[in-house]
This record gives sequence, structure tokens and C-alpha cells, in this order.
Amino acid sequence: MSPRKVYLEDIPLEEARRRFDDALAKDGAGSPTEPERVSIAEALGRVTAAPVWAPLSNPHYHGAAMDGAAVRAEETVGASEATPIRLALGGQAAWVDTGDPLPPYANAVIMIENIHTVGDGAGDEIEIMAPVAPWQHVRSMGEDIVATELVLPEGRRLTPVDVGAVAASGCTHVDVRRRPRVAILPTGTELVEPSTDIKPGDIIDFNSLMLAGQVTEWGGEAHRLPITPDDYERLKARISAALDEHDVVVVNAGSSAGTEDYTARIVGELGELLVHGVAIRPGHPLILGVARGKPILGIPGYPVSAVLTSELFLRPLIHRLLGTPPSLRPRLTASVTRKILSPMGEDEFLRVKLGKVGGRYMATPLQRGAGIIMSLVRADGIALIPRFSEGLHPGQEIEVELLRRPDEIDRTIVAIGSHDLTLDLLSSELSKAHAGLALSSSNVGSLGGLIALQRGEAHLAGSHLLNEETGEYNVSYLHRHLPGRALVLVNLVYRDQGLIVASGNPKGIRGLDDLLRDDVQYVNRQRGAGTRVLLDYQFKRLGIEPARVGGYGREEYTHLAVAAAIVGGTADTGLGILAAARALKLDFVPILKERYDLVIPHEHYQSELLRPLLELIRGEGFRRQVEALGGYDVSRMGEVVAEL
Amino acid sequence: MSPRKVYLEDIPLEEARRRFDDALAKDGAGSPTEPERVSIAEALGRVTAAPVWAPLSNPHYHGAAMDGAAVRAEETVGASEATPIRLALGGQAAWVDTGDPLPPYANAVIMIENIHTVGDGAGDEIEIMAPVAPWQHVRSMGEDIVATELVLPEGRRLTPVDVGAVAASGCTHVDVRRRPRVAILPTGTELVEPSTDIKPGDIIDFNSLMLAGQVTEWGGEAHRLPITPDDYERLKARISAALDEHDVVVVNAGSSAGTEDYTARIVGELGELLVHGVAIRPGHPLILGVARGKPILGIPGYPVSAVLTSELFLRPLIHRLLGTPPSLRPRLTASVTRKILSPMGEDEFLRVKLGKVGGRYMATPLQRGAGIIMSLVRADGIALIPRFSEGLHPGQEIEVELLRRPDEIDRTIVAIGSHDLTLDLLSSELSKAHAGLALSSSNVGSLGGLIALQRGEAHLAGSHLLNEETGEYNVSYLHRHLPGRALVLVNLVYRDQGLIVASGNPKGIRGLDDLLRDDVQYVNRQRGAGTRVLLDYQFKRLGIEPARVGGYGREEYTHLAVAAAIVGGTADTGLGILAAARALKLDFVPILKERYDLVIPHEHYQSELLRPLLELIRGEGFRRQVEALGGYDVSRMGEVVAEL
Repeated sequence: MSPRKVYLEDIPLEEARRRFDDALAKDGAGSPTEPERVSIAEALGRVTAAPVWAPLSNPHYHGAAMDGAAVRAEETVGASEATPIRLALGGQAAWVDTGDPLPPYANAVIMIENIHTVGDGAGDEIEIMAPVAPWQHVRSMGEDIVATELVLPEGRRLTPVDVGAVAASGCTHVDVRRRPRVAILPTGTELVEPSTDIKPGDIIDFNSLMLAGQVTEWGGEAHRLPITPDDYERLKARISAALDEHDVVVVNAGSSAGTEDYTARIVGELGELLVHGVAIRPGHPLILGVARGKPILGIPGYPVSAVLTSELFLRPLIHRLLGTPPSLRPRLTASVTRKILSPMGEDEFLRVKLGKVGGRYMATPLQRGAGIIMSLVRADGIALIPRFSEGLHPGQEIEVELLRRPDEIDRTIVAIGSHDLTLDLLSSELSKAHAGLALSSSNVGSLGGLIALQRGEAHLAGSHLLNEETGEYNVSYLHRHLPGRALVLVNLVYRDQGLIVASGNPKGIRGLDDLLRDDVQYVNRQRGAGTRVLLDYQFKRLGIEPARVGGYGREEYTHLAVAAAIVGGTADTGLGILAAARALKLDFVPILKERYDLVIPHEHYQSELLRPLLELIRGEGFRRQVEALGGYDVSRMGEVVAEL
Repeated sequence: MSPRKVYLEDIPLEEARRRFDDALAKDGAGSPTEPERVSIAEALGRVTAAPVWAPLSNPHYHGAAMDGAAVRAEETVGASEATPIRLALGGQAAWVDTGDPLPPYANAVIMIENIHTVGDGAGDEIEIMAPVAPWQHVRSMGEDIVATELVLPEGRRLTPVDVGAVAASGCTHVDVRRRPRVAILPTGTELVEPSTDIKPGDIIDFNSLMLAGQVTEWGGEAHRLPITPDDYERLKARISAALDEHDVVVVNAGSSAGTEDYTARIVGELGELLVHGVAIRPGHPLILGVARGKPILGIPGYPVSAVLTSELFLRPLIHRLLGTPPSLRPRLTASVTRKILSPMGEDEFLRVKLGKVGGRYMATPLQRGAGIIMSLVRADGIALIPRFSEGLHPGQEIEVELLRRPDEIDRTIVAIGSHDLTLDLLSSELSKAHAGLALSSSNVGSLGGLIALQRGEAHLAGSHLLNEETGEYNVSYLHRHLPGRALVLVNLVYRDQGLIVASGNPKGIRGLDDLLRDDVQYVNRQRGAGTRVLLDYQFKRLGIEPARVGGYGREEYTHLAVAAAIVGGTADTGLGILAAARALKLDFVPILKERYDLVIPHEHYQSELLRPLLELIRGEGFRRQVEALGGYDVSRMGEVVAEL
């Protein structure tokens, strides 16, 4: 514990870019890589290092575009069935098939249909029955490409068609930019390779895989180096060696201001530290530098920060080294569905789900934590909240940079509400059965889902709201929160809630009565959670006094946190779902069933978009798959349980 | 010459698709390929063959999100500088660095700033100066991914972020679809490998390169087989062998109805011929079939037809075999700039250049011939003229499927008019100097360019219109065709026009007077061509009577066609530009200089978009490059020669 605070700056994004670009220009560290000659069969996706000029014309000769005879058009004038014209084979006419070269004297081809052979056809004359215009039925030399013409400019990423055109002009090879070699150096004593056999404190290094994937997609050659522990000398030696063999060095992480964050110091020692700390979120502790004429990036350790800062700085750098223009993603304008507070002074990159509901694009913000990589897996786009803004208000229009194609977003069913594992399965099966159709599901709880429907932000909402007075599900809540709306309530599943207990159920817990035992410590869910409402309802029915349940006051916010408390030994049991018990390899005592419905506004229930989803949940195949998951009763799956 | 007409159908596109899809479904020939397990380091771009469920949570333990001490939040209530609380190290508190696991009893981390060590800090107690809320400064287990949760659905093409999420959940491998193996079988006795050493009648096989490139881009594994000559037995044996080892067989070409077009017959013999001839243009002679449970495509031989039919049928097939949704390209609406007649009864796919001029997207049709591969290299998009339409009228709005990104189209300077080689060079240099900026240039002749400006279809027009009365260039034409428009006329080059003569100039041609010689045969350009106007103007000045020039009546439409006539020996000389002579390795006798200007409407001349182009032509570097081309006088390059 000897904290040594490093000064971490707060440089605005544009200023950081400027400093980096200026340094790259000055040192030549940003100059395109040297050309290399590759065979056209290997040129796909590479970038031309010089303009490609055609050595040959295409076609490289005047050729017949029809089967028939090559002739001089001038000599066919006036020919008809009644007044055929005879032409001598050899000097005046020559048989040609499509693609054959014309003899030098010919400037047209007369179709086989308009020719009579004289005698047995092996003779030396033909008769023609129709005239032909000059250059008719001829593919003339250079019609496609004229020798010396520009086929491709410099800096062009070769498409399949480009490769074809280069070959058509006679080239067998093409000069392309060498792929920039990018070293990716994962650092951290706690890092381990991906595995399920890991202990608390181990952190799986998956950032280096993501960074390597990005580099590959952008046209670079990624080299993932072995994990380096937090050791100043070893790290410095590795960076120094990497500089010798690569065009760019990316260190991940050690870029923050902690005790063992050496990257900035090493960059400064090996070359020039340009930037340490950019006013962006996520991604703040970014390092930019140049050493020995090569760019070095210190990319932050949180995965979302790593991906975003790489997009912001490494992507344009690779484009620069390849000599290709920066590529911008398509954008669209959407209404944000939730209030978002964002700190002044930082550009925030917000991941959003998109959906087109009732003709408007709706952007639902995803989790904002820099550690939530699933927020990027789930994201349809990224919106920038500029640093002079305090955030977004619901309904505000924002520009979203798309991570998926617009047509995919148009074919996405938006579910906002309570989450259940069956929705994940439904999403997967829906896409499988109906290519191009997607189900995007955001977890904001049952009530949050009803509010989203009210605002027109979703096509449907998953809901399991128990009326504690009547024991009825959902209907009373719909009357209260969506009065006057035409709604269809479709059952998806009944799901088991049960007591999650340690593996082997050492305390022999069998039912809610056991929670009154002195040797049983309970862990509860927070007030308002469906599971909590269900527990309190049952306690009331059974006459159990909550105050007598040890641990009733301890609240956790997710099913998994409840399960984790049991693994940790600080509680013996908690009410939750089977999946949470399974996730941590715990046992599960089923106690109650709760109804989980889909709330669907009538206009969406009738729509073409939702039809395949409804068909799927009413089919036998999906029903069986859900049953196989365990913990579900599927007897009413797909049934309309209420229409309002 | 034994033409044997094969029946070639005219099946509407939708019907052809339906027949193919039905047959694929029936035979299982369209079922996804079997899964294969690959390491996550090799999973980028592959397609999941099953949903990926998380084996581990991420984080897989409750970890510290700050450096400090792990504590029970409940025991910190009331702590302050004035009333610190002492906690025992071991049972109540534990030092943690960011990322360290919490001990089982802890549920929060108190920051280092709020802790006093007691005594020398090595003791067994700490004092805390502030309270902390439960789970504050903790990265809780499963915050990102909960074990058993769906990480990725089936049928997902893995992005860098997806690979990261899979690794974060503890997976080391992932089940992906085997890449569909696609045999590409070039056929044709006339086909040769790309080379400049070819003779008339040879046709370079570049279709197989393009088809292989497409297959690779779509996620398949392309196998280019050797060229097979037009020999029924050999072709049948090759197709049969290819069926054994591949998921799909593509034969190119032999799909038409000519004598040596065996593909349809062979498909019918080996399996079922489903379609032979689709009512599309280009691409009509397409073959679709299924044999031994595998799809066979007979792709037409013209390169544009090959690429388009492959897009229409092979692309969705590969998506189907991979289990991924069909991918649609972005579209935009544009005004077509020219009248296009299109035959009823055929869906025509029109290649267009796009540009945004004065806020509107303008689509300029490119050459429509199925042999013009450069029309696809140059195309920004493809528009469909439906088979129930007779064509398009100027100004009509059409939907264009984009081949380039919308942001690239927005940064494209549109030049329509007379073409010159320096425009190609300018385009290449402009993109090089200003990443993302493009110059697109369509050749419609000088007058066509002025009309395009009049219609607001272009940012600038290349023009070399000589006033035969005054000898002045361009200005009088601008007054006539663009009256009242504020225009800037900028000189690009003076270019040499000269007499193109056979190599070594065997007839000793030195000037226009020589055209009067009996032993000299001239080849002319068409009426209205700039070169023709120039010739006639000079004849008038020199008092040369055109009627006395042998061959004056023979008109060709391009510089290259003139040069080709000289190579063919049917003419001795023609007026043209140096580049045309060089293209066919002919000699060139410079005779005249003509002025080639850029006509730029004032609003575009002032625009940000054009500024870099104007800077470039006024810079020394570009001037020197043009000079090095030969045949140009660059002394006034970039100079404003007139303002109107």
C-alpha cells in the first residue's frame, strides 16, 4: 500500500486527436507502410499502394459478339432475301463464333440467321440476306478498358470486382500496402488466459482478443504477445522489443494512475508521452505517445473503454498507415427512451438498443459501466453525449452511429420489461427460423416495461406483476398503467420460484416454514422486486411474520446476488429462480409458480412483424425446448389470457 | 457451324428464386453446414452454429472496484473524521486493490482516502473516517454476464466484441458453421490465365477471381478449379468430381444457348435442371439446378452478368448454408440524370454513379453492356428498373442500393463532361491527399457536361469546346447553354492533339497537308466530337478541302477506335490524343494544342467540397505529375481564365 499518484490529464477528445496527428505527421510515424507486390489471387481486401494503369485494353481485340460472319458493313448495303449479296470467304467475309477476333478488313458481324451458304457451305462464298451497320455485333477493342487508362486509384481497398478489372487489364500482380503490424501487449499480474478453471482475483484477458479482432477487421496484422505481469523492467523490455518489430504498439492496460500503472512512464522514457487522460467516458485513462518513430497507445483496461478508445484512435491510425480514407458508420436519428444524466466536461459514448416502433426509431440506453462488455454485444448503435451537455431527457432526438445495418434494425421486435431466460431462447430461435428477424430484449423490470409501452417505446413487455390483494397477475396493473389501451395479454410460461440452497441442501430446507428456524439465515430481494412481492404474499397467506425470519432485512438486487450470498456462506437460502441456482451450481427447492406473460398492444399483436414470434411460441418445438430448460410450466404457452 | 438451339427460358426473377428455394428445401441441399469447433482466437467472422450460453459469470467473483479496504457496509454507519470507527483486519476489514476479490463477509469497499492506519499500519486494526453503502465500489459477480445466460444467439457472425464476450464467459472454443465449400469452375476453350502475353481470340478468365472474391467476402471457402475447355465429357467429369468435394458448384460459363454451351445439359443429366434463363438484364442465361443434394449454378460468361447473378442467387445461398440472415445493402433515393429505355419483360439492374449536388442525390447511369466490368468498378450503386417498366425519364426518382457508404457519396465531387486522363490522375491524387474525398468523373462529352451543369447534376464539367468562328474556347458555349449562371472557368491543361500513325511512321506523315496525299488514308471522328471540330477549324484556316481527304467520311466514336483502325491497317492516320497512340503502341505527331478547362458554377467554386481540388491543381506537385505524362502543357493549370 504505497499509493503513488500519477497526474492524469483531462484532455478534450479533439485536442488529443490533434496532438496525436501532429506528432504522427512530424515523426513520419503515421506514413503509409511500404508497398508489396501480391498476386491478384491474393489481392482481395488489400489496399492499392499506387494507381493501377491498364497494360492491356479489354477487349484487347475487335471480337464477334454473335455467331455469324465477319464482314465489311459497307459491302452489305442493300442486301435482302430478294436481293442477296455474295461475299467471298477469305477476302470479304469470314465465319466467326462469339468471341472470335475479326479479320483486319471487317468492321461488323452478320448473324448466322441472315446468311445462306452457297452450295455445301464448304465453298468460298456466302450469300447474305440483310445489311449490317458498321460495328454492329462487334465487341470493340477497349470497350471496357483502354490500355493506359486508370483502372484503380491509389488507396483503394480491392473488392472482388476490382480484382477482376485489374486481371482483365492484363495485370497478374498488384502493388498493395503492407498490412500494418500491430503488437498487442496485455499486461497485468492478475490476467489469465480464457478458461473456466480460474480462482477469485483472476481476470480473463479477453481485451487482447477484441483488440486483435478490431485490427484484423480494419486491415492490420495483429500480433497478440504473451501476458506481461505488472513489472516495470519486464514491461519496458517487452514494449521496447515490440517497437522493433511492429508499426504500432498497443499496451493494455496499466494506463491508469494506480501504483502498478507503468505504461505512461515507460512511454515517456522510450519516446514522447503526448496524452495521458482524455475527457471521454468510458475510456478516460488513455495514453498516446510516439517512440522511435512509431505510435504507442496505452489502452484502458475496462473492456468497453478498450474497444471504444481503440475505435477512436487505433482505427484512424490503421487507415492512415494503409492510406485509406477514415470510414464512418451510417447514422440515424432516434428518440431516447430514458433520462440520462451525463457529467459535464466529458464526451460520453452511450450504447443503445434501437427499434422502430410505430414508425419512430427508439433508442434505449444500455448499461453504462465500462466493465459491461455485453452492453457492446447487445448494442445496435452508439450515441455521443457531448461534453457541454448534462445529459438527455426522454424523447430527446439523438444521432446514433449504427453497429448493425438499418434493415436489421427495422426487423427487430423490441421487448422492454422483466427479463426471463425463455426470452433469450425465443430470440435465438426466432432468428434461426426467420432469417433477418430479431428480438431485442431490455431488462427494466415488469413495471418499467409497462411504462415503455405507455410511451410507445416497445412492441411488447414481459411482465409478472402479482396483485397482492387478489393473487391475480398483471391485469389490474394494465388497467392502472395503460388505461384505455387495447392490449392482448399472452402467457409465455409459469416459472418456478424456489429456495436456492447450498449444494446438497445441508440444512435440509424444504419449505417457507424452514425460514423461521434459528439455524437458517435468509437473504431477501429488494422491495418492489417481483420475487419479493411473491414472498410477502405467501407469508401473508401462510401467516408467517417477516420479522421472525432471520436475514429478511438483507436485500439483494438480482437473483444472482442472492445465489452468490449463499455460495459465500453468509446466507443459507433465498427465494429465486432455478437458473440462478444453476449458474452457481447450487440446489433448488421449488416452492411457488408465478405467471410470466407478454403484454402486447393490439396494433403490434396484429402486425406482420410479430406474427412469426406468436407462431413460434404456439408451436410444439419451442414449447419442448423451454420444458427441457427445467423450472418452467409451459401448459398455457401462447394462450391469450386476457384482452383489454 | 452446326448450331443446335437450346431452349432458353425467360423465367421472372421471383419465380426463379422460388423454384431454387423450393428445391433446396426439398433436397436438404440448402441446410446449414455442420458445426465445427474453433478456438476463440480463430472465431472472428465465423457464424455460431448454436447459441453460446455462459459457463462462467463475469466478473466471476465480487471484486474491489477501488483500492482500499473491504468492509461490511453495516459496520461503517456513522463513521466520520470526528468519530472514526475501528475495524479489525481479518474479521471485519481487509486491504484490497482494484480487482481483488472481497472476503466472504464483506459487501463494500471503503476508499484508501477514508482510512487511517492505526500505529504503523502493519497492525491488526484500521480506522475509517466515512460510511460506505452496501455494494459501493464493488464490481459484483455477474454484473456483466451471469453464468447460464445467453451470450450469443445461433447464426451470429462473430464480431471482435462478440469474441471478447465469449472469452469473458470462460469459453475457450466456440461451435461455428463450417464455411461452405464452393467450387468455381471456369469453362471455355478460349479462356486463358491473366497475362499481357495473349493473342487475339484469347479471353482472360477473370470471372473466376471475382466469383471467388465474392464467396470469400460472404463467408464461404472458394476453390477455383483449373480452366476446362468446351468439351462435354471433360466438363461433365469435372462437375461430377466437384460435386463430391464441395457444398456448391458454380460453373462459369457455358450457360447460354450456343453450340458449345453444355452446362444445362450436364446439370440435367447429373440431377435436376430447375431454371435455364431468367428474365433479368444483364444475366439472362443463368442456370440453376440441384444434383446429388447439392446446388449447381451456371453463371453467365459476361463479367457484369456473372457478378450480378452471383449476388442474386449465390449470396443468399451462402447465407442459407451459414444460417445467417440475408444481408441487404443500404439504399437511398436519387434523381436519375438521363433518359433510359429498358425493355419490358426484364428486370434491369442499372449501375449508377451517385453524387450529392446542391442537396439532392443524382444518379448518373453508367455503361449498360454486360461486358463492361469497369461499370461495376465505377458504380456507387445499383438501381432496379422493374420488368413492367419501359425505362426512366430524367429527374425520375429511383431507389439505389449502395455499393459505397453514404458518407463517401456525400464527399464525392461529381464531374460530368469531356474526359481526359488528367482527371483520372486528379481523382487518384485527390483521394490520396484528402482521405475520404473522391472525384467521380463521367464521360458524356463537353456539351453533355454543360447540360448536366444546367440541370444541377454535377459540381463541374470538363470542356474543350472550340468556337469555330473565333478560335476561342468554351466561353461562347457557356453564354449559350448556361445563360445567366455565375460560372468560373478554370484551365486544367492544354493538350496535344496530333496525328496517330503506325509505329515508325512508315508513311512519313508530318502534318495536316499530308492528309491530301493519295497514299494516305485518314480515319475521322464523328460530327460534334471536339477533335472533329478542331480538325474542321484547322482545315478552314489552312484552306484544306475536306472532300479531298481520303477517308474523311469514315467516322469513329472514340480516340481508341481511331487508333485501332490504324493498327488494323485499314487507315494510316487519324487525329487524336497521345494517350490513345500510346495505348496501342503507335506513334504520334503533335499538330495542335487545345484548351481543356473545368467549368464550375460559382456556388460550387466557393464550396468547402471543391477547395482541396482547386488547391491541388494549383500546387507544384500535381503540375509536375501531369507534365510527366507527356502530351500536356500545364503552364496555365489552375488559372481562372474567365468569370461569368
